Amino acid sequence: MIVNNSLDEIKKRENALSFISKIIEDNGRNFLYDLTGLSGGFIASNEDLNLLETYIGPAVIEQELQSVGLEHLGGQKVLPVNRTSSGILATILALVEKDSYVVHFLSKLPAHPSIPRSCNLINANYLEFDNFDEFYIPENTSLVIITGSTMDHQVIDETIFKKVIQHAHSRDIPVFVDDASGARVRTVIYNQPKAIDLGADLVITSTDKLMPGPRGGLMSGDEDLINKIKVKANQFGLEAQSPTCLAMVNGLKNFTEDNLKNGFLRKEELFNLLKDDFILFEESSTSVMISPENLKKQLKVNSSSKDLAYALSMILLKDSGIITIPAVSMPSASATIRFDLSANDAFNLDLKDLHKNIVSAISKLSKIANDEDRLKEIIFN
Amino acid sequence: MIVNNSLDEIKKRENALSFISKIIEDNGRNFLYDLTGLSGGFIASNEDLNLLETYIGPAVIEQELQSVGLEHLGGQKVLPVNRTSSGILATILALVEKDSYVVHFLSKLPAHPSIPRSCNLINANYLEFDNFDEFYIPENTSLVIITGSTMDHQVIDETIFKKVIQHAHSRDIPVFVDDASGARVRTVIYNQPKAIDLGADLVITSTDKLMPGPRGGLMSGDEDLINKIKVKANQFGLEAQSPTCLAMVNGLKNFTEDNLKNGFLRKEELFNLLKDDFILFEESSTSVMISPENLKKQLKVNSSSKDLAYALSMILLKDSGIITIPAVSMPSASATIRFDLSANDAFNLDLKDLHKNIVSAISKLSKIANDEDRLKEIIFN
Repeated sequence: MIVNNSLDEIKKRENALSFISKIIEDNGRNFLYDLTGLSGGFIASNEDLNLLETYIGPAVIEQELQSVGLEHLGGQKVLPVNRTSSGILATILALVEKDSYVVHFLSKLPAHPSIPRSCNLINANYLEFDNFDEFYIPENTSLVIITGSTMDHQVIDETIFKKVIQHAHSRDIPVFVDDASGARVRTVIYNQPKAIDLGADLVITSTDKLMPGPRGGLMSGDEDLINKIKVKANQFGLEAQSPTCLAMVNGLKNFTEDNLKNGFLRKEELFNLLKDDFILFEESSTSVMISPENLKKQLKVNSSSKDLAYALSMILLKDSGIITIPAVSMPSASATIRFDLSANDAFNLDLKDLHKNIVSAISKLSKIANDEDRLKEIIFN
Repeated sequence: MIVNNSLDEIKKRENALSFISKIIEDNGRNFLYDLTGLSGGFIASNEDLNLLETYIGPAVIEQELQSVGLEHLGGQKVLPVNRTSSGILATILALVEKDSYVVHFLSKLPAHPSIPRSCNLINANYLEFDNFDEFYIPENTSLVIITGSTMDHQVIDETIFKKVIQHAHSRDIPVFVDDASGARVRTVIYNQPKAIDLGADLVITSTDKLMPGPRGGLMSGDEDLINKIKVKANQFGLEAQSPTCLAMVNGLKNFTEDNLKNGFLRKEELFNLLKDDFILFEESSTSVMISPENLKKQLKVNSSSKDLAYALSMILLKDSGIITIPAVSMPSASATIRFDLSANDAFNLDLKDLHKNIVSAISKLSKIANDEDRLKEIIFN
């Protein structure tokens, strides 16, 4: 196995970032196609920028963020955090007791690692379910978490969503929804209500996922709970800073449902092109994707499935300037190769060209898929 | 006691921020004087802003930050973090074992709360000293921390600085320097070397303190240690995001020693004006300040010293638009009223006017200092 731990993952990410940097320097930004669906944005006027001073910026910006944030998420009060992961940490620090249980339901395992990791940090017990028939809430549970849409954009069934909330509330346990991409995928593509309108006490979304905002997390919900979480966030430096808050305001104001809806249609088109070549590609709301396990099956080799995904992601970057998550991700993110057709850059790509580039990258990978040295070279150099 | 816990502190901060917001709306930014010394800045050209996309921005910006950051701090590799507090948390998560000791030396207690709090989170033992004669490093110590300059800008003696490092290194224990403002105060005003040049393994500075950068923390030091800390930072969402990194690059490029040196001279001038009225004012490198305890002595009342400081800070804000830390600070920050003469806004103030405003605010406070209802109204409304 080549990428074996978090340090290797950081090394892989740094290699990809320096390659991206080189492409921008040598050829320009137009030679890159960020199809992660995470490319967000940073929209700010010069007037906006003048506000960005430590104690003056927040005063003006946080007030505006309250109003646009509540409109997007519902709830009584919003709390902007540095990342969705740091918001999850702050929530668990604020609401979960040592030795108590955190119960997590999501449509498909694995869970985002930040949830079990934060539980582990404070010595709480963590239980996770992706089958509602097996779902239960033990005695001494502090918090129930629901993931609205997984890292690979698998969306939870609305009926189950409501049932999990009912179970928790019948026991007076607060419900926190990790709606990273779900706050938009669920509502726009699947016509589901906002998490808060389904009865959740707290929700968090990633402001760079499927909307033109900055990397960061935006929470909302019950005011008393938000205030408790805010204390922990401020104590440990987990809150979002003013520049991020400013870009959240403008990202939310500029969010339209059209990109998601068009992405959904173009996704269908690309999926139809690809499925003749590779039967193991799957589709989600606005993406076509292949999991590391399916990639390994497709290539019929013995190498680690994740290493194959990292290598494919790097080949796509180096040969075609296509950015997918595995090359550039933070430790423990999903290694699924996902092409998000709702990303801004996706609209600049001819789908037939994209199809050709994907076929050619997989063909290149297949030739070296059993050669650990060659894979290593592609991932780290 | 009026401000009694972290929730009260958040409420007080929110009240101050909404007051600041109102002043900007009604009168404009020029009616505010941010003398916190934390007002930083956010310098960015339009070209810079185009870079700020999730996976493309970091590639270019982080490379530039490496070079300007290493120049400012020394060391082998820099790591930008969301706040100095989150960098301290990441460091303790990465380097400190449960049940082991963290030993902290600073020129004057109290320590910044983020250090004991992070130790407490992982069940490490925390020892702190501000007298070198009492200083010792117990068995099973994971990390020695030195604060270069305290929250109130008290600077450590260079000889003691070196001795603490020697002690730690003779036992093979890494030394981490919290040089939040110290990286500049110590070097520019006190002519001390950089922490890394004094032998420290790691250093962190706050990029909004005494330089025109964004709220955030910048770490540097030994590459292997930084890599370990980076893993924890990325796992829990503690790292700085691209907009902050961009503003760090530009803040460092625009940092000059002149503001600090001029601030030092003007501080002398203000101190000479104030000391005739109030003998309990003190001076630090670029600031004139009064501690909550001395404020209480000055006013000869029984109210909580911190409440008096919060009220004075609010009076200064409401009557004169002067922003000091106690009104707007995060939970557990120092409640010392400090006027930083190296702040940008300080150069727009006539020192005689500033002197008059301070005298009048203290006189106003003295009239209500025993009336808890009035103090409460000033702090929270």
